Amino acid sequence: MENLGKYRFLGRVNSPAELRKLSDDELDILCSEIRSKLIETVSANGGHLASNLGTVELTVALHRSFNAPEDTIVWDVGHQAYTHKLLTGRFESFDTLRREGGISGFVRPDESIYDSFYEGHAGTSVSQAAGVAAVNRIKGNQNYAVAVIGDGSFGNGMVYEAMNVAGAEKNRLIVILNDNEMSIDENVGSMAKKLARIRAKPEYYRFKAKTEKALNHIPFIGRYLASFLFRIKSTLKTIIYKSSFFEDMGFRYIGPIDGHDIQALSEAMNSAKMVNGPTLIHVNTIKGKGYDFAENSPEMYHGVSRFDIDTGAENSGDGNYSSQFCKALCEFAEKDKRICAVTAAMTIGTGLQDFFKEYPERSFDVGIAEEHAVTFCSGLAKSGMIPVFAVYSTFLQRCVDQLIHDGALQRQKMIIAVDRAGFVGEDGETHQGLLDIPLTGCIPGATIYSPATYDGLSRCLYRALYKDEGLIIIRYPRGSQPEDNRFEPNGEDYDIIGDENADIALVTFGRLFFEAYKAMEILSGKGIKIKIIKLLRIKPINPEIITSLKDTKKVFFFEEGEITGGAGERFGSALCESGFTGEYRLTGVKNEFVPHAPVERLLKEYKLDANSMAEMIENE
Amino acid sequence: MENLGKYRFLGRVNSPAELRKLSDDELDILCSEIRSKLIETVSANGGHLASNLGTVELTVALHRSFNAPEDTIVWDVGHQAYTHKLLTGRFESFDTLRREGGISGFVRPDESIYDSFYEGHAGTSVSQAAGVAAVNRIKGNQNYAVAVIGDGSFGNGMVYEAMNVAGAEKNRLIVILNDNEMSIDENVGSMAKKLARIRAKPEYYRFKAKTEKALNHIPFIGRYLASFLFRIKSTLKTIIYKSSFFEDMGFRYIGPIDGHDIQALSEAMNSAKMVNGPTLIHVNTIKGKGYDFAENSPEMYHGVSRFDIDTGAENSGDGNYSSQFCKALCEFAEKDKRICAVTAAMTIGTGLQDFFKEYPERSFDVGIAEEHAVTFCSGLAKSGMIPVFAVYSTFLQRCVDQLIHDGALQRQKMIIAVDRAGFVGEDGETHQGLLDIPLTGCIPGATIYSPATYDGLSRCLYRALYKDEGLIIIRYPRGSQPEDNRFEPNGEDYDIIGDENADIALVTFGRLFFEAYKAMEILSGKGIKIKIIKLLRIKPINPEIITSLKDTKKVFFFEEGEITGGAGERFGSALCESGFTGEYRLTGVKNEFVPHAPVERLLKEYKLDANSMAEMIENE
Repeated sequence: MENLGKYRFLGRVNSPAELRKLSDDELDILCSEIRSKLIETVSANGGHLASNLGTVELTVALHRSFNAPEDTIVWDVGHQAYTHKLLTGRFESFDTLRREGGISGFVRPDESIYDSFYEGHAGTSVSQAAGVAAVNRIKGNQNYAVAVIGDGSFGNGMVYEAMNVAGAEKNRLIVILNDNEMSIDENVGSMAKKLARIRAKPEYYRFKAKTEKALNHIPFIGRYLASFLFRIKSTLKTIIYKSSFFEDMGFRYIGPIDGHDIQALSEAMNSAKMVNGPTLIHVNTIKGKGYDFAENSPEMYHGVSRFDIDTGAENSGDGNYSSQFCKALCEFAEKDKRICAVTAAMTIGTGLQDFFKEYPERSFDVGIAEEHAVTFCSGLAKSGMIPVFAVYSTFLQRCVDQLIHDGALQRQKMIIAVDRAGFVGEDGETHQGLLDIPLTGCIPGATIYSPATYDGLSRCLYRALYKDEGLIIIRYPRGSQPEDNRFEPNGEDYDIIGDENADIALVTFGRLFFEAYKAMEILSGKGIKIKIIKLLRIKPINPEIITSLKDTKKVFFFEEGEITGGAGERFGSALCESGFTGEYRLTGVKNEFVPHAPVERLLKEYKLDANSMAEMIENE
Repeated sequence: MENLGKYRFLGRVNSPAELRKLSDDELDILCSEIRSKLIETVSANGGHLASNLGTVELTVALHRSFNAPEDTIVWDVGHQAYTHKLLTGRFESFDTLRREGGISGFVRPDESIYDSFYEGHAGTSVSQAAGVAAVNRIKGNQNYAVAVIGDGSFGNGMVYEAMNVAGAEKNRLIVILNDNEMSIDENVGSMAKKLARIRAKPEYYRFKAKTEKALNHIPFIGRYLASFLFRIKSTLKTIIYKSSFFEDMGFRYIGPIDGHDIQALSEAMNSAKMVNGPTLIHVNTIKGKGYDFAENSPEMYHGVSRFDIDTGAENSGDGNYSSQFCKALCEFAEKDKRICAVTAAMTIGTGLQDFFKEYPERSFDVGIAEEHAVTFCSGLAKSGMIPVFAVYSTFLQRCVDQLIHDGALQRQKMIIAVDRAGFVGEDGETHQGLLDIPLTGCIPGATIYSPATYDGLSRCLYRALYKDEGLIIIRYPRGSQPEDNRFEPNGEDYDIIGDENADIALVTFGRLFFEAYKAMEILSGKGIKIKIIKLLRIKPINPEIITSLKDTKKVFFFEEGEITGGAGERFGSALCESGFTGEYRLTGVKNEFVPHAPVERLLKEYKLDANSMAEMIENE
């Protein structure tokens, strides 16, 4: 409660109803208090800063114009909803943001009735809101479904699929396009250009007009009058702004609106509520608004680690798997002009910025469009290039059919660099990279590598480029290689470390190798000998390994990922088929979504850390 | 060669160069010969009829205007490329269409250098062509990349993703929108409405004008003049037709063009080649053109079995799993108003037409948009409905992340009816339903049923509706239940059939149960006793089953699907963990794409038929 003293309004407003009681001036103070709180919390806990600073007024206006939870507000991606959390009962717990056991950095229905869906991936909100709006029609109620979606997500095909269908119906669906001129990196594509053209018009902010603001203060009649005026003007402006794109999709277009003017936003929302059918409100916001460092370099403050408020400096380490991957890729690309790099709006996240600078002609950022990214790669490959698509494990889930149909089936070389494979920590459930092995393992002909070290990563890339055929997956974790890189394995498909004749084997791959190595040391100190089988290529598994284990008494397999359909089941089944008669124990994540927590904590929780490994082996 | 006698031109034209030598009148004859051949072959072999009858002239014009294979022609889905096959060296083998060992019903680079990509799924062509066009620019050549895509595919988000990115570049990319007013069923959404508005304009066919046709016969100058006139008119028409949608996407718009007028088509294509940057040519074709039955009911002649040319009657059986599923769903829906049915342009294919007729308000066809379909379902579920999305196994690959993120993660009930699970036969590689188990099995909390019989299907649906929570998958094969339905299992999660004490167990699920039953009879005749374990719920597997097999000597698992990441590996690994010391043998498809052939042939090929099962068990 001590926090409360710092604020006049923040912390005292815990529901939309209370928010509606505040005057315009009070709202201004509230917004500035929210910004302080956002900067303070994100600087301490890490998180999404720029997008949240940009949506303060938008959120306030939303909760004043709409009556949640009867009206359903859907936050696309859900990373811009911190203000929403602060205003819907989570001020007290806000300091726990992204901490283990604390509130999530994304929206979650189990946190609040005001959170409609679990969110984390881009482009889902219009489909979800369309579903809600359809049911509202079926049930005959008067509730609205509102999707709040950034311009970056507008490059995603699902948004278009949803608008195409929803635009043909007369449901109470409102899409709020939060246009901050960039998604995560700079925005790409024709849609971005089009939005920029709209912004460039001199008539930019229609709702700045004092007269309209004044009209609004006249109760009842004034509001209707303003809305009527608005609607006439809107018809004209629609032509001026060439916004027929949205009209072609069946949506009534309202905009552009100054996204930091609560009054203007409220007017637009109230007008949208009077339209009979789906409406799109185009709102312009400034990403990072109110914090200079973030305003000037919003792409650096999209998702951040802890940082220093005064200098803006992030408290993060030096190299990581992503940057090492890019370094290796650049080295190969210097000599081999066929190598192309492709990203889906994650140039910085996947560490590709140096490649993009050095080889702009062979660099492709397609926006948040993982499906297109892969299929575009098949076009590059067809014409003799070697496409390398770097993508987070969690977003790879978006292009599974493309990997099958436009990747492997084409019998062409395509390399997928799967970043953030394994636990990702604070981003939580929606962002864990735990499913890429089952999802890609079943693809006929696919090869999968999961190196542990930077050096292993380079070697896998070399093999993918010059030794293997078809679809090749190279997966590596978020973050940095552990410092204690004492041992550098160099086998082709696998390494055996420790006592080759031990009758206990510990099988693993990826960064868990470092845990396994520590476990071996712990056990060695207790006089227990084991051998570690470190897999480099996890599909296909070299059959020598299975044969070599035939007479081993106990085999422990540790997998940093979902075990259903994963490498450990494949290994266990192969052992079973081989006539293995020893004990087999498979440890990993089983049939559950993993909440946000630091990676070290998750490794421990799922018994994948060195101590758990050693304990399990000692006690069984 | 005897076929050749029937035709004056067909069969003598085997490359684009030869095609270009024919006069206008000769082309007309050729087109009519092609239509005869299409009807004759599809009536005998089955296949896609209506779409191919609609693209005869379009294909002829394409191969005259573009210089394949230097220019790359990409056929979206690839089911409309029969004429392309007939004109590029496959006349002689055309009678083998869709037959085992014969040519495919889709395009395949291993059949011809004129086939650029392996195709089968919708909406990939623009991305692929964009990739090719990007490389053409990098290499500095003058080649074109042309995507030919139906209006149905235009509801798919990937097309939008591709156009959004490609429209912002100046590559030699031409998209030919083959608008036949329907995809597979009737078309849905705003885009379809928009295209209909364009078609309804009186100026409809601009290139009908005799003057332009005449101008074209003047060598060199005439062609340029016509093109110049065209370009001026086009600018005006663009406004008239409100085609700014495509212009907003960065594409120059040309259209609409009569898709059965070779001259008009050629002119449009030649004009498009002169545009500096991406161009869209909007072509109107009549699906089923030239065959009355198909022209009047194109949705019935999208993909057909063998049929009688004179009556148009299909030679197919009565009931099938799809229709049985719909019947059961309708029965439940009558009493339970929460039940909704969703399809992605497959109302007829998935047998849902009766549900759509009976409960139109609770029926949703979202077009070829599997991603949106699932996420829309999450909106329906949020508002208290029970959404049931019926989709082919192969197309389920398109919405894997949605099943994870917008399905299971939401902790809401969502039922996915996976039709065509397993071998599909003649449609081949791109359409086999062999991956849905690994792809859905790894989703946390998902439940998967794979019933063998119609009755089992109803019971699974009941359990999904009223007993289970979260994401539930019910998968069933294409076609009909085998007649010899002597045994009707009725266990909860599994059944044990045969001698419970036998030390040989055969484990399987789905329609393979019928093969297993026959195998048991064959073996019984030879004095070999086995027990069949028929799984109904394949995830989670009831642990009782594993326990019960502990002392069994031999366990044979048969899976009609990819075994990597599938149910059999999970079973084998669980056996291994349980301390099972007998023999385990897993049989299924392993790490390969399965070509087209009748289902019976494929079962035999992959040793999944009764005889192979019996033989394997007898000999090991």
